[in-house]
Amino acid sequence: MINFQIDYADGAHPDILAALMKANQIQTEGYQTDEYCQLAKQSIQKHLNALESEIYFLVGGTQTNLTFISHALRPYQAVLSASTGHVATTETGAIEATGHKIIEIISQDGKISLKQLEQTYNNYDGFHKVEPKLLYVSNPTELGTLYSKKELEALFNFCHQHEMYLYLDGARLGSALAASSNTMKLSDYAKLTDAFYIGGTKNGALFGEALVINHPSLQHQFYLSMKQKGALLAKGRSLGIQFIELFRQNLYFTIGQEANEMAQLLKEGLKTLNFSFLVETETNQLFPILPNSLIDYLHQRFNFLIWQAYDDTHSVVRFITSYVTTKQDVYELLSAIIQFKEKNALH
Amino acid sequence: MINFQIDYADGAHPDILAALMKANQIQTEGYQTDEYCQLAKQSIQKHLNALESEIYFLVGGTQTNLTFISHALRPYQAVLSASTGHVATTETGAIEATGHKIIEIISQDGKISLKQLEQTYNNYDGFHKVEPKLLYVSNPTELGTLYSKKELEALFNFCHQHEMYLYLDGARLGSALAASSNTMKLSDYAKLTDAFYIGGTKNGALFGEALVINHPSLQHQFYLSMKQKGALLAKGRSLGIQFIELFRQNLYFTIGQEANEMAQLLKEGLKTLNFSFLVETETNQLFPILPNSLIDYLHQRFNFLIWQAYDDTHSVVRFITSYVTTKQDVYELLSAIIQFKEKNALH
Amino acid sequence: MINFQIDYADGAHPDILAALMKANQIQTEGYQTDEYCQLAKQSIQKHLNALESEIYFLVGGTQTNLTFISHALRPYQAVLSASTGHVATTETGAIEATGHKIIEIISQDGKISLKQLEQTYNNYDGFHKVEPKLLYVSNPTELGTLYSKKELEALFNFCHQHEMYLYLDGARLGSALAASSNTMKLSDYAKLTDAFYIGGTKNGALFGEALVINHPSLQHQFYLSMKQKGALLAKGRSLGIQFIELFRQNLYFTIGQEANEMAQLLKEGLKTLNFSFLVETETNQLFPILPNSLIDYLHQRFNFLIWQAYDDTHSVVRFITSYVTTKQDVYELLSAIIQFKEKNALH
Amino acid sequence: MINFQIDYADGAHPDILAALMKANQIQTEGYQTDEYCQLAKQSIQKHLNALESEIYFLVGGTQTNLTFISHALRPYQAVLSASTGHVATTETGAIEATGHKIIEIISQDGKISLKQLEQTYNNYDGFHKVEPKLLYVSNPTELGTLYSKKELEALFNFCHQHEMYLYLDGARLGSALAASSNTMKLSDYAKLTDAFYIGGTKNGALFGEALVINHPSLQHQFYLSMKQKGALLAKGRSLGIQFIELFRQNLYFTIGQEANEMAQLLKEGLKTLNFSFLVETETNQLFPILPNSLIDYLHQRFNFLIWQAYDDTHSVVRFITSYVTTKQDVYELLSAIIQFKEKNALH
Repeated sequence: MINFQIDYADGAHPDILAALMKANQIQTEGYQTDEYCQLAKQSIQKHLNALESEIYFLVGGTQTNLTFISHALRPYQAVLSASTGHVATTETGAIEATGHKIIEIISQDGKISLKQLEQTYNNYDGFHKVEPKLLYVSNPTELGTLYSKKELEALFNFCHQHEMYLYLDGARLGSALAASSNTMKLSDYAKLTDAFYIGGTKNGALFGEALVINHPSLQHQFYLSMKQKGALLAKGRSLGIQFIELFRQNLYFTIGQEANEMAQLLKEGLKTLNFSFLVETETNQLFPILPNSLIDYLHQRFNFLIWQAYDDTHSVVRFITSYVTTKQDVYELLSAIIQFKEKNALH
Repeated sequence: MINFQIDYADGAHPDILAALMKANQIQTEGYQTDEYCQLAKQSIQKHLNALESEIYFLVGGTQTNLTFISHALRPYQAVLSASTGHVATTETGAIEATGHKIIEIISQDGKISLKQLEQTYNNYDGFHKVEPKLLYVSNPTELGTLYSKKELEALFNFCHQHEMYLYLDGARLGSALAASSNTMKLSDYAKLTDAFYIGGTKNGALFGEALVINHPSLQHQFYLSMKQKGALLAKGRSLGIQFIELFRQNLYFTIGQEANEMAQLLKEGLKTLNFSFLVETETNQLFPILPNSLIDYLHQRFNFLIWQAYDDTHSVVRFITSYVTTKQDVYELLSAIIQFKEKNALH
Repeated sequence: MINFQIDYADGAHPDILAALMKANQIQTEGYQTDEYCQLAKQSIQKHLNALESEIYFLVGGTQTNLTFISHALRPYQAVLSASTGHVATTETGAIEATGHKIIEIISQDGKISLKQLEQTYNNYDGFHKVEPKLLYVSNPTELGTLYSKKELEALFNFCHQHEMYLYLDGARLGSALAASSNTMKLSDYAKLTDAFYIGGTKNGALFGEALVINHPSLQHQFYLSMKQKGALLAKGRSLGIQFIELFRQNLYFTIGQEANEMAQLLKEGLKTLNFSFLVETETNQLFPILPNSLIDYLHQRFNFLIWQAYDDTHSVVRFITSYVTTKQDVYELLSAIIQFKEKNALH
Repeated sequence: MINFQIDYADGAHPDILAALMKANQIQTEGYQTDEYCQLAKQSIQKHLNALESEIYFLVGGTQTNLTFISHALRPYQAVLSASTGHVATTETGAIEATGHKIIEIISQDGKISLKQLEQTYNNYDGFHKVEPKLLYVSNPTELGTLYSKKELEALFNFCHQHEMYLYLDGARLGSALAASSNTMKLSDYAKLTDAFYIGGTKNGALFGEALVINHPSLQHQFYLSMKQKGALLAKGRSLGIQFIELFRQNLYFTIGQEANEMAQLLKEGLKTLNFSFLVETETNQLFPILPNSLIDYLHQRFNFLIWQAYDDTHSVVRFITSYVTTKQDVYELLSAIIQFKEKNALH
């Protein structure tokens, strides 16, 4: 089976595993108090041009989201998220389990507009309703789309005018940074969010996410929240070693680049074959609309997700690529589609 | 600095890292649905002689404790634990954060006796009080002591007569299994607990704990609790690969053995030097009582924990060993003590 | 100001206050273990023709909802509710604060159809998503509409086929029972729900709701949940005394009847004046669409809620009546509207 | 049966019921936004000589404790309480259910000394442990003992030096204020706590507690926490009306006075009969040590609590009095004891 289902199907990028191997015998303290973690933090702070930001390493995305959000909010405060947001859809109620409502803003393309934010915010007032306090956005979104710098700036300004936090889920930040239409530099994230995370798991790491907390008051006692949520890895060094390697040279960026290139190659191929898409994306996720018969055919040799029904005979699927996807993988998929079309004279 | 502070100061046992390396390029599905996890589960089930037990892999001990306990309990139910228990002392309120009271039973040696359990249990009745539902024990305990099979059997029988669960924290189970006085085989844990975990982090793994749920109704929907608590590693394969290696031959047991041997070597040395101990242990933790001046002296070259004050001039310290501790490390520590004694004519 | 804003603006029905007065000096045990509570429970069981159902008295609606729902659910389980449901809109995240997600089903008229329930339920599967376990419905709904017996039966059957609970919020059950189109007898609620509550606060009590738990396993240890949530009134007798009085003769039903009659009188008047309504209702809530200028005018002398904007110049308002609303109140409101229309020649 | 079991066995003080009756037909707004609540708040502020303190009315003690404490704390923060504290012993884990650990300080007499507070506080440091943030004390304590002004001042100063809150449970504050040895005026509570509550339920009200929040930042959004916890009574007026009456003249104080007098009368009688006590109290609770045979005999005609075993043949019991206890009740109890002693020649 060729994998277009997940972008974390391998172990780790070979350079990362080599770095873990190299440091393996050296003994360090635990819980991110070791030197590797210190170096990784400094390296990220430098890349962000934000020496006052604090960096924390966690193991996974859901863990990062629930630990940070529950740390930031008072019991009566809520999260605003696109209806497509990871926290709203695929975390088994992780945020609610820490006591907080997620107010969903209906979104078709994974993004929230300033107007939507305003309208929703204004619906919440009085003691019968939760206080909206944290805006959750993902970049790229769960639909592979991107916020422009201007759009994110508008959301961030609204948040600060209304004493809300803006938190950005960067599970696939590497792909966002490498997208051809991208207008957000890594350092912009330190300026336009109160906190965000740099996803490692989906960008070549064995595991690990680097949470960047820019808002000073949210840094206070964050280690206690991490420990309490089971999110403070005992052998924290493994996280430090990996993020040193990801940011030592350009590895974090090239991994995102390589994933995007394969997706765009596939996109061009699908367009040539006249398929249309749920949304237009320039990152490593594609959402083409395919006939159900074709989907069944492809599933014999390719792993990929059926995203949602489109009509009685078509569905939206998700093809996802990573730095381990090869041109050969893409061509085999496109060939299989052509073969099927020819056999079935697909309109 | 020579480390007697933690038994997880290194990366991973070389064999484990080699196994990760070997499987690195192979692509698998995520979230423990891959083949490595399946094989690891089967291997553990076989070692336990318990094919009906379910095995789940988590990343750390606190995470395992909070995920399992919150899964097992109704909102009004509570945990019974020794006052020295990890969940009671060093998890930053992780269990309470999931909504459950921990009823602490005062313990000097880390263990709970049947009589203590009975007395405490009988204090809880009526709707003004929580319902004690889960007995938490560690083996070895946080003080390095061991339950005998007979003792654990008595606790387990009481639990089942009173519809309570017995859950055992095996963070250092490798050390327990290898202790000279040990009477509990690995397979006994499947018979005498409702759930327990086989600690990897403190026994050579890069990270990871294998939770074994023996009680069938507690297996139901446990993956949902894992995901909700951020405890379901996306690249779950890494856990499977490590536990395959730990149980492929005797690695899990020899790692525990090696740790114990170094501790016992150190214990004999300390006894020869006439030091006494807070408790008698045969595992990889020692709790000698040292003069504070000696402690200061040793801290210049050795890392170790001050456990508690003993009197105005002495403290209990914890020396902990692992498979990476060498005889050379032990001898250097003993030499330094002798040197200090000679210089200061310590009684 | 004449009140059309809330149906709990007074103290209590005079008969209820008289009953409290009469029993005042008699001393009883606390926490609903007294004889008044026992008598009230038996009386309600008899009215329900359900001697196996258990009755619990709580102080308010939000308290009842959060105590019952958190008692019924496992951490990974969720509530299904209409987007207009009280738990989803006006309880300040009370359910989420106990750890549970509310899955909202978009509703225009306050009701959920079987088809909607099926579609939403089928979207939830796999360990990335919560398990839908409890369907929350209100009768009458927050929009004053009613479920027919047939509709409720269909929802209940679906729930039981899928091992879900059906819980019904009867904050205004008195009004539902007295509605002209009503097809649900009080005893039907014991047959077609797993639990529901008979609202007192909005039907003449000084305070108090009678929660009826029909499903045996949900009765287990419910007093512990009540105590834990601060929902077990120390002087529980006051609840028993009030519900004895409400169900001694027909008081509970006549109070609902009187509220409905005033609403229907007002509805007829508004229809004669050619106003249209957001939804058609036969209970004590009306949702007419009024010009904003008229709303401003009426607000000088009448209290009532603006429900939502309708268009640039009109809004939906809510007029609510209770047993203390008089014909005189209704006529004054209608007169004021006529007066305004004449003055402004409203189209 | 004559009641020495609870001090809330009746309905309400007749003056309070009369006040509820008088206001019954007047319609008001809901949720404590009505004029009665405003007047009651002003009246209490005046009695406290603390116009900046905010007053909130809740229905019961456990509800008040859990709502306030969960409002005040961040997830990683904990409560310090005497091991005898109501939150630690008889609230079915209510505080833990909101996510917070209670650190218990062992107490024989219900009180915490400054030294104990210091020692316990100093044990909590580092990210493996919760942050002690709120000191919970009761006055009178659950054992009927009293803090002196000097003692409370010392605790409060420690709290503020260490950025902790001091919260005082005044379930029986009326009894404390009326005790002969009392050194705390009502207005002192506004100066020496961050928040406290004036108990109504156990001091003549039908129900209700007045929570006084002195610390400004803890007042912020407290109505949202009340609503979320189901603690915001819809017909909030009933609470206002009752507290107006309790503080209109001296009713709150005389009710406490009357309860104390009956307890002290009983105490003198018991002392004459040579019984000793677990603790010396001057409030409305007595904890004499009685032979078990006498306890059995008395239980035929008197309700009272067995507090704890004392030795094989004796137990500590609790006799509690209220404003409805009569001299006749006390004499009957003493007579019964004498009778028993004579019959059995008790030493």
